[in-house]
Amino acid sequence: MAPDQLPETDLTRHRRLRDQGSLDRADLDAILDAGFVCHLGVVVEGRPLVVPTVYGRDERRLYLHGSVASRSLAGGTPVCVTVTHVDGLVLARSVFEHGVNYRSAMIHGEARKVTDPEEKLAGLRRLTEHATPGQWSYARRPSRKELAATTLLVLPLDAASVKIRTGAPDDGDGPDAELGLWAGVLPLTSAWGVPVPDPSLPPQTPIPAHIARREGTRHG
Amino acid sequence: MAPDQLPETDLTRHRRLRDQGSLDRADLDAILDAGFVCHLGVVVEGRPLVVPTVYGRDERRLYLHGSVASRSLAGGTPVCVTVTHVDGLVLARSVFEHGVNYRSAMIHGEARKVTDPEEKLAGLRRLTEHATPGQWSYARRPSRKELAATTLLVLPLDAASVKIRTGAPDDGDGPDAELGLWAGVLPLTSAWGVPVPDPSLPPQTPIPAHIARREGTRHG
Repeated sequence: MAPDQLPETDLTRHRRLRDQGSLDRADLDAILDAGFVCHLGVVVEGRPLVVPTVYGRDERRLYLHGSVASRSLAGGTPVCVTVTHVDGLVLARSVFEHGVNYRSAMIHGEARKVTDPEEKLAGLRRLTEHATPGQWSYARRPSRKELAATTLLVLPLDAASVKIRTGAPDDGDGPDAELGLWAGVLPLTSAWGVPVPDPSLPPQTPIPAHIARREGTRHG
Repeated sequence: MAPDQLPETDLTRHRRLRDQGSLDRADLDAILDAGFVCHLGVVVEGRPLVVPTVYGRDERRLYLHGSVASRSLAGGTPVCVTVTHVDGLVLARSVFEHGVNYRSAMIHGEARKVTDPEEKLAGLRRLTEHATPGQWSYARRPSRKELAATTLLVLPLDAASVKIRTGAPDDGDGPDAELGLWAGVLPLTSAWGVPVPDPSLPPQTPIPAHIARREGTRHG
Protein backbone atom coordinates (compact mmCIF):
# COMPACT_ATOMS: atom_id res chain seq x y z
CA MET A 1 0.00 0.00 0.00
CA ALA A 2 1.13 3.53 -0.69
CA PRO A 3 1.47 5.74 2.36
CA ASP A 4 -1.26 8.31 2.97
CA GLN A 5 1.25 11.10 3.38
CA LEU A 6 3.83 11.89 0.76
CA PRO A 7 7.33 12.14 2.20
CA GLU A 8 8.54 15.71 2.52
CA THR A 9 11.92 16.18 0.86
CA ASP A 10 13.95 19.19 -0.18
CA LEU A 11 12.33 18.98 -3.58
CA THR A 12 8.75 18.73 -2.44
CA ARG A 13 8.81 21.16 0.47
CA HIS A 14 6.69 24.19 -0.25
CA ARG A 15 8.92 27.16 0.20
CA ARG A 16 6.43 29.55 -1.31
CA LEU A 17 2.63 29.71 -1.27
CA ARG A 18 2.72 27.28 1.64
CA ASP A 19 -1.02 27.60 2.11
CA GLN A 20 -1.57 26.12 -1.33
CA GLY A 21 0.58 23.09 -0.70
CA SER A 22 -0.58 19.59 0.08
CA LEU A 23 1.29 16.40 0.84
CA ASP A 24 -1.84 14.23 0.81
CA ARG A 25 -1.53 11.10 -1.22
CA ALA A 26 -5.25 11.27 -2.05
CA ASP A 27 -4.82 14.74 -3.56
CA LEU A 28 -1.95 13.49 -5.70
CA ASP A 29 -3.95 10.49 -6.95
CA ALA A 30 -6.99 12.65 -7.71
CA ILE A 31 -4.93 15.09 -9.79
CA LEU A 32 -3.18 12.31 -11.69
CA ASP A 33 -6.44 10.47 -12.32
CA ALA A 34 -8.21 13.59 -13.59
CA GLY A 35 -5.85 13.94 -16.56
CA PHE A 36 -3.78 11.94 -19.01
CA VAL A 37 -1.23 14.45 -20.37
CA CYS A 38 1.73 15.58 -18.28
CA HIS A 39 4.75 17.77 -18.89
CA LEU A 40 7.98 15.81 -18.55
CA GLY A 41 11.09 17.80 -17.73
CA VAL A 42 14.61 16.48 -18.26
CA VAL A 43 18.05 18.04 -18.44
CA VAL A 44 19.79 17.64 -21.80
CA GLU A 45 23.35 18.96 -22.00
CA GLY A 46 22.72 21.24 -19.07
CA ARG A 47 19.53 22.70 -20.50
CA PRO A 48 15.94 21.98 -19.52
CA LEU A 49 13.61 20.27 -21.96
CA VAL A 50 9.87 20.12 -21.23
CA VAL A 51 7.75 17.85 -23.41
CA PRO A 52 4.09 16.89 -23.17
CA THR A 53 3.38 13.17 -23.03
CA VAL A 54 0.73 10.72 -21.85
CA TYR A 55 0.91 8.81 -18.60
CA GLY A 56 -0.76 6.17 -16.47
CA ARG A 57 -0.14 4.93 -12.97
CA ASP A 58 -0.43 2.12 -10.50
CA GLU A 59 -0.25 2.43 -6.71
CA ARG A 60 3.46 3.09 -6.62
CA ARG A 61 4.63 4.07 -10.09
CA LEU A 62 3.98 6.52 -12.88
CA TYR A 63 4.29 5.25 -16.46
CA LEU A 64 5.16 7.67 -19.25
CA HIS A 65 5.05 7.24 -22.97
CA GLY A 66 8.46 7.65 -24.56
CA SER A 67 9.19 10.90 -26.28
CA VAL A 68 11.99 12.96 -27.70
CA ALA A 69 13.18 13.29 -24.10
CA SER A 70 13.75 9.54 -23.85
CA ARG A 71 16.92 9.75 -25.90
CA SER A 72 18.73 10.99 -22.83
CA LEU A 73 17.14 8.58 -20.36
CA ALA A 74 19.36 5.55 -20.64
CA GLY A 75 19.71 4.85 -16.94
CA GLY A 76 18.19 6.48 -13.93
CA THR A 77 17.89 10.07 -15.07
CA PRO A 78 16.40 12.83 -12.92
CA VAL A 79 13.05 13.93 -14.26
CA CYS A 80 10.27 16.22 -13.10
CA VAL A 81 6.75 15.36 -14.20
CA THR A 82 4.06 17.99 -13.75
CA VAL A 83 0.31 17.57 -14.27
CA THR A 84 -1.80 20.72 -14.12
CA HIS A 85 -5.54 21.32 -14.29
CA VAL A 86 -6.60 24.93 -14.74
CA ASP A 87 -9.96 25.55 -13.08
CA GLY A 88 -10.45 29.26 -13.61
CA LEU A 89 -9.20 32.81 -13.57
CA VAL A 90 -9.21 34.58 -10.21
CA LEU A 91 -10.25 38.14 -11.06
CA ALA A 92 -9.51 40.41 -8.10
CA ARG A 93 -10.02 44.15 -7.62
CA SER A 94 -6.30 44.73 -8.04
CA VAL A 95 -4.08 43.32 -10.77
CA PHE A 96 -1.67 42.30 -8.01
CA GLU A 97 -4.18 39.85 -6.48
CA HIS A 98 -5.09 38.21 -9.77
CA GLY A 99 -4.39 34.53 -10.00
CA VAL A 100 -5.47 31.16 -11.23
CA ASN A 101 -7.51 28.40 -9.60
CA TYR A 102 -5.69 25.19 -10.35
CA ARG A 103 -4.64 21.75 -9.20
CA SER A 104 -1.09 20.74 -9.94
CA ALA A 105 1.05 17.74 -9.04
CA MET A 106 4.80 17.59 -9.45
CA ILE A 107 6.67 14.29 -9.27
CA HIS A 108 10.44 14.12 -8.94
CA GLY A 109 12.57 11.07 -9.37
CA GLU A 110 14.80 8.96 -11.50
CA ALA A 111 13.03 7.60 -14.56
CA ARG A 112 14.13 4.44 -16.26
CA LYS A 113 13.19 2.82 -19.53
CA VAL A 114 11.11 -0.32 -19.12
CA THR A 115 12.83 -3.18 -20.96
CA ASP A 116 11.14 -6.32 -19.65
CA PRO A 117 8.33 -7.15 -22.13
CA GLU A 118 5.85 -8.22 -19.44
CA GLU A 119 6.46 -5.11 -17.38
CA LYS A 120 6.15 -3.02 -20.53
CA LEU A 121 2.85 -4.65 -21.47
CA ALA A 122 1.50 -4.09 -17.96
CA GLY A 123 2.62 -0.44 -18.04
CA LEU A 124 1.09 0.16 -21.47
CA ARG A 125 -2.14 -1.32 -20.18
CA ARG A 126 -2.14 1.21 -17.30
CA LEU A 127 -1.39 4.00 -19.74
CA THR A 128 -4.11 2.97 -22.20
CA GLU A 129 -6.74 2.41 -19.52
CA HIS A 130 -5.84 5.69 -17.83
CA ALA A 131 -6.67 7.72 -20.94
CA THR A 132 -9.56 5.55 -22.16
CA PRO A 133 -11.00 3.10 -19.65
CA GLY A 134 -12.17 -0.02 -21.45
CA GLN A 135 -9.91 0.43 -24.46
CA TRP A 136 -7.30 -2.19 -23.54
CA SER A 137 -9.79 -5.03 -23.90
CA TYR A 138 -11.36 -3.49 -27.03
CA ALA A 139 -8.42 -2.53 -29.26
CA ARG A 140 -5.82 -4.88 -30.70
CA ARG A 141 -3.01 -5.24 -28.19
CA PRO A 142 0.64 -4.68 -29.11
CA SER A 143 2.49 -7.35 -31.04
CA ARG A 144 5.97 -8.33 -29.89
CA LYS A 145 7.44 -6.10 -32.61
CA GLU A 146 5.25 -3.15 -31.67
CA LEU A 147 6.12 -3.64 -28.03
CA ALA A 148 9.82 -3.51 -28.86
CA ALA A 149 9.25 -0.30 -30.84
CA THR A 150 7.49 1.39 -27.91
CA THR A 151 9.41 3.38 -25.35
CA LEU A 152 7.91 3.32 -21.90
CA LEU A 153 9.37 5.11 -18.90
CA VAL A 154 8.64 4.34 -15.27
CA LEU A 155 9.07 6.58 -12.26
CA PRO A 156 8.31 5.90 -8.58
CA LEU A 157 5.51 8.00 -7.05
CA ASP A 158 7.58 8.65 -3.92
CA ALA A 159 8.63 12.28 -4.13
CA ALA A 160 5.68 14.39 -5.11
CA SER A 161 4.09 17.67 -4.20
CA VAL A 162 0.66 19.04 -4.87
CA LYS A 163 -0.58 22.59 -5.13
CA ILE A 164 -4.23 23.54 -5.20
CA ARG A 165 -5.91 26.94 -5.28
CA THR A 166 -9.66 27.24 -5.08
CA GLY A 167 -12.21 29.92 -4.34
CA ALA A 168 -12.65 33.66 -4.54
CA PRO A 169 -10.00 36.40 -4.77
CA ASP A 170 -8.23 37.40 -1.58
CA ASP A 171 -8.87 41.15 -1.64
CA GLY A 172 -12.56 41.14 -0.65
CA ASP A 173 -11.80 42.29 2.90
CA GLY A 174 -9.12 44.85 2.10
CA PRO A 175 -9.25 48.53 1.12
CA ASP A 176 -9.72 47.62 -2.55
CA ALA A 177 -13.20 46.26 -1.73
CA GLU A 178 -14.27 49.93 -1.61
CA LEU A 179 -13.45 50.41 -5.29
CA GLY A 180 -16.84 49.02 -6.32
CA LEU A 181 -15.27 46.74 -8.90
CA TRP A 182 -16.64 43.32 -9.79
CA ALA A 183 -14.46 40.48 -8.59
CA GLY A 184 -14.81 36.73 -8.72
CA VAL A 185 -13.82 33.65 -10.62
CA LEU A 186 -14.25 32.89 -14.31
CA PRO A 187 -14.39 29.08 -14.34
CA LEU A 188 -12.77 27.01 -17.04
CA THR A 189 -14.01 23.49 -17.68
CA SER A 190 -12.92 20.79 -20.05
CA ALA A 191 -15.31 18.18 -21.42
CA TRP A 192 -15.38 15.29 -23.87
CA GLY A 193 -17.22 15.99 -27.11
CA VAL A 194 -19.07 13.94 -29.68
CA PRO A 195 -16.89 11.05 -30.94
CA VAL A 196 -15.74 11.59 -34.54
CA PRO A 197 -15.58 8.32 -36.51
CA ASP A 198 -12.55 7.69 -38.71
CA PRO A 199 -13.77 8.55 -42.26
CA SER A 200 -12.37 5.24 -43.45
CA LEU A 201 -14.66 3.20 -41.13
CA PRO A 202 -17.29 1.04 -42.83
CA PRO A 203 -20.74 2.55 -42.26
CA GLN A 204 -22.66 1.24 -39.25
CA THR A 205 -19.53 0.27 -37.34
CA PRO A 206 -20.96 0.43 -33.82
CA ILE A 207 -19.31 2.78 -31.36
CA PRO A 208 -18.42 0.87 -28.20
CA ALA A 209 -20.20 1.85 -25.00
CA HIS A 210 -17.01 2.71 -23.13
CA ILE A 211 -16.30 5.48 -25.65
CA ALA A 212 -19.88 6.63 -26.30
CA ARG A 213 -20.62 7.14 -22.63
CA ARG A 214 -17.86 9.72 -22.18
CA GLU A 215 -19.59 12.26 -24.44
CA GLY A 216 -20.45 15.36 -22.44
CA THR A 217 -18.63 14.22 -19.30
CA ARG A 218 -16.15 16.45 -17.60
CA HIS A 219 -12.40 16.06 -17.94
CA GLY A 220 -9.77 17.48 -15.60
CA MET B 1 8.48 42.66 -37.11
CA ALA B 2 9.05 39.08 -36.13
CA PRO B 3 10.20 36.81 -38.96
CA ASP B 4 7.59 34.53 -40.50
CA GLN B 5 9.80 31.50 -40.10
CA LEU B 6 11.25 30.49 -36.77
CA PRO B 7 14.99 29.87 -36.96
CA GLU B 8 15.87 26.20 -36.92
CA THR B 9 18.43 25.43 -34.24
CA ASP B 10 19.70 22.25 -32.65
CA LEU B 11 17.05 22.67 -29.99
CA THR B 12 14.10 23.27 -32.26
CA ARG B 13 14.91 20.79 -34.99
CA HIS B 14 12.36 18.00 -35.07
CA ARG B 15 14.29 14.83 -34.74
CA ARG B 16 11.22 12.73 -34.18
CA LEU B 17 7.68 12.91 -35.51
CA ARG B 18 8.96 15.24 -38.20
CA ASP B 19 5.61 15.29 -39.96
CA GLN B 20 4.07 16.87 -36.88
CA GLY B 21 6.62 19.65 -36.70
CA SER B 22 6.14 23.25 -37.75
CA LEU B 23 8.44 26.24 -37.78
CA ASP B 24 5.70 28.70 -38.75
CA ARG B 25 5.64 31.82 -36.67
CA ALA B 26 1.85 32.04 -37.16
CA ASP B 27 1.40 28.56 -35.64
CA LEU B 28 3.50 29.56 -32.65
CA ASP B 29 1.52 32.75 -32.08
CA ALA B 30 -1.80 30.91 -32.42
CA ILE B 31 -0.81 28.31 -29.81
CA LEU B 32 0.46 30.95 -27.40
CA ASP B 33 -2.62 33.10 -27.85
CA ALA B 34 -5.01 30.20 -27.29
CA GLY B 35 -3.81 29.68 -23.71
CA PHE B 36 -2.48 31.50 -20.69
CA VAL B 37 -0.79 28.78 -18.59
CA CYS B 38 2.56 27.33 -19.60
CA HIS B 39 4.97 24.84 -18.06
CA LEU B 40 8.31 26.47 -17.27
CA GLY B 41 11.31 24.17 -17.03
CA VAL B 42 14.55 25.15 -15.34
CA VAL B 43 17.58 23.27 -14.07
CA VAL B 44 18.13 23.54 -10.32
CA GLU B 45 21.25 21.88 -8.97
CA GLY B 46 21.42 19.62 -12.00
CA ARG B 47 17.80 18.50 -11.71
CA PRO B 48 14.84 19.56 -13.82
CA LEU B 49 12.01 21.54 -12.26
CA VAL B 50 8.74 22.04 -14.19
CA VAL B 51 6.26 24.55 -12.81
CA PRO B 52 3.02 25.87 -14.24
CA THR B 53 2.77 29.63 -14.53
CA VAL B 54 0.92 32.31 -16.49
CA TYR B 55 2.36 34.14 -19.47
CA GLY B 56 1.76 36.90 -21.97
CA ARG B 57 3.65 38.02 -25.06
CA ASP B 58 4.46 40.80 -27.42
CA GLU B 59 5.86 40.44 -30.94
CA ARG B 60 9.30 39.41 -29.82
CA ARG B 61 9.16 38.35 -26.17
CA LEU B 62 7.37 36.02 -23.80
CA TYR B 63 6.60 37.31 -20.28
CA LEU B 64 6.26 34.87 -17.42
CA HIS B 65 4.94 35.36 -13.94
CA GLY B 66 7.58 34.66 -11.33
CA SER B 67 7.36 31.41 -9.49
CA VAL B 68 9.32 29.10 -7.25
CA ALA B 69 11.58 28.59 -10.26
CA SER B 70 12.59 32.27 -10.25
CA ARG B 71 14.84 31.77 -7.26
CA SER B 72 17.44 30.31 -9.56
CA LEU B 73 17.01 32.80 -12.39
CA ALA B 74 19.30 35.63 -11.35
CA GLY B 75 20.93 36.21 -14.72
CA GLY B 76 20.34 34.66 -18.08
CA THR B 77 19.32 31.15 -17.15
CA PRO B 78 18.38 28.52 -19.72
CA VAL B 79 14.67 27.76 -19.60
CA CYS B 80 12.23 25.74 -21.66
CA VAL B 81 8.64 26.96 -21.78
CA THR B 82 6.01 24.60 -23.15
CA VAL B 83 2.37 25.41 -23.90
CA THR B 84 0.12 22.47 -24.79
CA HIS B 85 -3.51 22.27 -25.87
CA VAL B 86 -5.01 18.78 -25.87
CA ASP B 87 -7.66 18.47 -28.58
CA GLY B 88 -8.67 14.83 -28.29
CA LEU B 89 -7.84 11.18 -27.97
CA VAL B 90 -6.91 9.36 -31.17
CA LEU B 91 -8.50 5.93 -30.77
CA ALA B 92 -7.04 3.57 -33.36
CA ARG B 93 -7.74 -0.11 -34.04
CA SER B 94 -4.44 -1.06 -32.41
CA VAL B 95 -3.14 0.18 -29.09
CA PHE B 96 0.15 0.90 -30.87
CA GLU B 97 -1.45 3.54 -33.10
CA HIS B 98 -3.25 5.33 -30.28
CA GLY B 99 -2.31 8.94 -29.78
CA VAL B 100 -3.40 12.43 -28.92
CA ASN B 101 -4.49 15.33 -31.08
CA TYR B 102 -2.72 18.36 -29.70
CA ARG B 103 -1.01 21.64 -30.38
CA SER B 104 2.18 22.32 -28.49
CA ALA B 105 4.78 25.08 -28.58
CA MET B 106 8.19 24.85 -26.94
CA ILE B 107 10.32 27.96 -26.43
CA HIS B 108 13.98 27.74 -25.50
CA GLY B 109 16.14 30.59 -24.32
CA GLU B 110 17.73 32.50 -21.54
CA ALA B 111 15.19 34.06 -19.21
CA ARG B 112 15.98 37.14 -17.20
CA LYS B 113 14.17 38.90 -14.40
CA VAL B 114 12.66 42.23 -15.43
CA THR B 115 13.93 44.94 -13.08
CA ASP B 116 13.09 48.21 -14.83
CA PRO B 117 9.72 49.36 -13.39
CA GLU B 118 8.39 50.62 -16.75
CA GLU B 119 9.35 47.43 -18.53
CA LYS B 120 7.81 45.44 -15.70
CA LEU B 121 4.56 47.39 -15.89
CA ALA B 122 4.41 46.92 -19.67
CA GLY B 123 5.06 43.18 -19.28
CA LEU B 124 2.42 42.79 -16.56
CA ARG B 125 -0.04 44.55 -18.82
CA ARG B 126 0.69 42.00 -21.57
CA LEU B 127 0.31 39.19 -19.08
CA THR B 128 -2.98 40.51 -17.64
CA GLU B 129 -4.49 41.26 -21.04
CA HIS B 130 -3.40 37.90 -22.37
CA ALA B 131 -5.42 36.02 -19.75
CA THR B 132 -8.31 38.49 -19.53
CA PRO B 133 -8.60 41.03 -22.34
CA GLY B 134 -10.00 44.29 -20.97
CA GLN B 135 -8.92 43.65 -17.39
CA TRP B 136 -5.90 45.98 -17.33
CA SER B 137 -8.07 49.05 -17.78
CA TYR B 138 -10.75 47.73 -15.39
CA ALA B 139 -8.82 46.52 -12.33
CA ARG B 140 -6.63 48.64 -10.04
CA ARG B 141 -3.12 48.66 -11.47
CA PRO B 142 -0.06 47.76 -9.41
CA SER B 143 1.29 50.27 -6.92
CA ARG B 144 5.03 50.90 -6.83
CA LYS B 145 5.29 48.58 -3.82
CA GLU B 146 3.26 45.83 -5.50
CA LEU B 147 5.33 46.18 -8.64
CA ALA B 148 8.51 45.70 -6.61
CA ALA B 149 7.00 42.60 -4.99
CA THR B 150 6.16 41.05 -8.37
CA THR B 151 8.63 38.83 -10.17
CA LEU B 152 8.37 38.98 -13.93
CA LEU B 153 10.57 37.00 -16.30
CA VAL B 154 11.16 37.78 -19.96
CA LEU B 155 12.35 35.45 -22.68
CA PRO B 156 12.93 36.13 -26.39
CA LEU B 157 10.60 34.32 -28.80
CA ASP B 158 13.51 33.40 -31.08
CA ALA B 159 14.06 29.68 -30.60
CA ALA B 160 10.76 27.90 -30.67
CA SER B 161 9.25 24.78 -32.13
CA VAL B 162 5.68 23.77 -32.67
CA LYS B 163 4.09 20.36 -32.90
CA ILE B 164 0.54 19.78 -34.06
CA ARG B 165 -1.39 16.57 -34.61
CA THR B 166 -4.89 16.63 -36.04
CA GLY B 167 -7.30 14.19 -37.61
CA ALA B 168 -8.13 10.52 -37.64
CA PRO B 169 -6.01 7.54 -36.59
CA ASP B 170 -3.39 6.31 -39.05
CA ASP B 171 -4.39 2.64 -39.27
CA GLY B 172 -7.51 3.01 -41.41
CA ASP B 173 -5.72 1.72 -44.52
CA GLY B 174 -3.71 -1.08 -42.93
CA PRO B 175 -4.55 -4.71 -42.10
CA ASP B 176 -6.12 -3.69 -38.77
CA ALA B 177 -8.97 -2.03 -40.68
CA GLU B 178 -10.30 -5.57 -41.22
CA LEU B 179 -10.81 -6.07 -37.48
CA GLY B 180 -14.18 -4.32 -37.61
CA LEU B 181 -13.35 -2.16 -34.62
CA TRP B 182 -14.59 1.39 -34.19
CA ALA B 183 -11.87 3.99 -34.55
CA GLY B 184 -11.87 7.74 -34.49
CA VAL B 185 -11.27 10.75 -32.31
CA LEU B 186 -12.82 11.59 -28.96
CA PRO B 187 -12.57 15.39 -28.91
CA LEU B 188 -11.76 17.36 -25.79
CA THR B 189 -12.78 20.99 -25.53
CA SER B 190 -12.29 23.62 -22.89
CA ALA B 191 -14.72 26.47 -22.36
CA TRP B 192 -15.32 29.40 -20.02
CA GLY B 193 -18.19 28.95 -17.60
CA VAL B 194 -20.59 31.22 -15.75
CA PRO B 195 -18.66 33.89 -13.79
CA VAL B 196 -18.86 33.28 -10.02
CA PRO B 197 -19.04 36.55 -8.06
CA ASP B 198 -16.85 36.91 -4.96
CA PRO B 199 -19.27 36.24 -2.02
CA SER B 200 -18.02 39.43 -0.38
CA LEU B 201 -19.20 41.62 -3.29
CA PRO B 202 -22.02 44.07 -2.54
CA PRO B 203 -25.22 42.88 -4.25
CA GLN B 204 -25.88 44.34 -7.68
CA THR B 205 -22.23 44.96 -8.43
CA PRO B 206 -22.39 44.88 -12.23
CA ILE B 207 -20.27 42.35 -14.04
CA PRO B 208 -18.19 44.11 -16.69
CA ALA B 209 -18.90 43.26 -20.32
CA HIS B 210 -15.37 42.08 -21.05
CA ILE B 211 -15.81 39.28 -18.48
CA ALA B 212 -19.49 38.49 -19.07
CA ARG B 213 -19.02 38.00 -22.79
CA ARG B 214 -16.54 35.15 -22.35
CA GLU B 215 -19.16 32.84 -20.84
CA GLY B 216 -19.61 29.81 -23.06
CA THR B 217 -16.75 30.72 -25.38
CA ARG B 218 -14.07 28.21 -26.20
CA HIS B 219 -10.64 28.24 -24.64
CA GLY B 220 -7.52 26.56 -25.99
